[in-house]
Amino acid sequence: MSKKSNKIPEPTISRLPVYLSCLYELKNNDVAIVSSEEISTRTGIKASQFRKDMSYFGEFGIQGLGYPITQLLERISNILQVNKLHKAVLVGVGHLGQALARYNGFSKWGFKIEHLYDSDPGKIGTEVNGIVIEDINDMPDSLKASIGIISVPAEHAQKTAHKLIKSGITALLNFSGVQLNTGKEVIVRTVDLSHELAILNYFHLTRQKPKKK
Amino acid sequence: MSKKSNKIPEPTISRLPVYLSCLYELKNNDVAIVSSEEISTRTGIKASQFRKDMSYFGEFGIQGLGYPITQLLERISNILQVNKLHKAVLVGVGHLGQALARYNGFSKWGFKIEHLYDSDPGKIGTEVNGIVIEDINDMPDSLKASIGIISVPAEHAQKTAHKLIKSGITALLNFSGVQLNTGKEVIVRTVDLSHELAILNYFHLTRQKPKKK
Repeated sequence: MSKKSNKIPEPTISRLPVYLSCLYELKNNDVAIVSSEEISTRTGIKASQFRKDMSYFGEFGIQGLGYPITQLLERISNILQVNKLHKAVLVGVGHLGQALARYNGFSKWGFKIEHLYDSDPGKIGTEVNGIVIEDINDMPDSLKASIGIISVPAEHAQKTAHKLIKSGITALLNFSGVQLNTGKEVIVRTVDLSHELAILNYFHLTRQKPKKK
Repeated sequence: MSKKSNKIPEPTISRLPVYLSCLYELKNNDVAIVSSEEISTRTGIKASQFRKDMSYFGEFGIQGLGYPITQLLERISNILQVNKLHKAVLVGVGHLGQALARYNGFSKWGFKIEHLYDSDPGKIGTEVNGIVIEDINDMPDSLKASIGIISVPAEHAQKTAHKLIKSGITALLNFSGVQLNTGKEVIVRTVDLSHELAILNYFHLTRQKPKKK
């Protein structure tokens, strides 16, 4: 099977943002070419893994020299489509929701949170980072956004997901700590902070050095 | 190679918290035995993947019936050592830091945030969830904790990591959005919320259904 087939393995996709962050940093430092070993030192991902991942995107490496940063940045940016605008709405403006709403790092990746929703009358109408918090019950039937971010407490997560899906959202980033039941047409990525801590703790207790993700 | 060797692959470890959360839920519903198909429906992880993951822990499945939940819960709990107390300190009590400090879900996994540190005089001395925020400059040389959580802005992340390591911390959960330079004896797990959004967005744009993580 050709490695240049369109189907890029999921673990490779999951590493692309790490490479992209690293390449941005190198470019900011006016570096033009980078070796897989340097990428490995900076990201904690094995050099051989990086080379294998890159092989899915065509022959970028220059034998004995390394990878041209501008070209690689452009290629990965295109794959992840970070140069386009991707609109998101966020439901649940608690501390985590506020942290997400205030986070300046999303724009570099093409993401813009356009609407904030909550059910707390004390929050509705107030602003976070220039965005007015709207009543979850006033969510329109058709949201002009592609991504829904769920940062409500666990017990409200499922009905929030249903509401977002009913409003046309088909990609959900789920911080609620519970698995969501959605139709097959909806893509869900669940980030559970307890799980991250549990995985770190395992590697710490067993002293098995994980690949950085 | 025997699948029962002690070396459990990293992707398997990363899925264990997902299984554990699912098993807790089933146990709460008084379910005694679960099929790999049911686990798959609930977690989004393929049934064959679950069975393969379980094979690292010995023969749990009962042919034609499924997996006994209590035994499986106990086994995974022991592997992740969630029944022991794991102390953590958190540096950077912004919105994300506050969300983490207030999160009630950590205790179920054995985690307890014992100290909060910040450099903001307006925050030092105030309480979050019953924990007084201490001055980062007063961090003792020897912290009685195993895990450090870094939720400071990117530009302060590296020096915060150094400070924690100097105080004896050898496991870091890094929310700062930058890669940390640490010695080989330190285990780092980086959670970058932009990356999570970028990965979700890729699968959404390409309509390639990811395995849930």
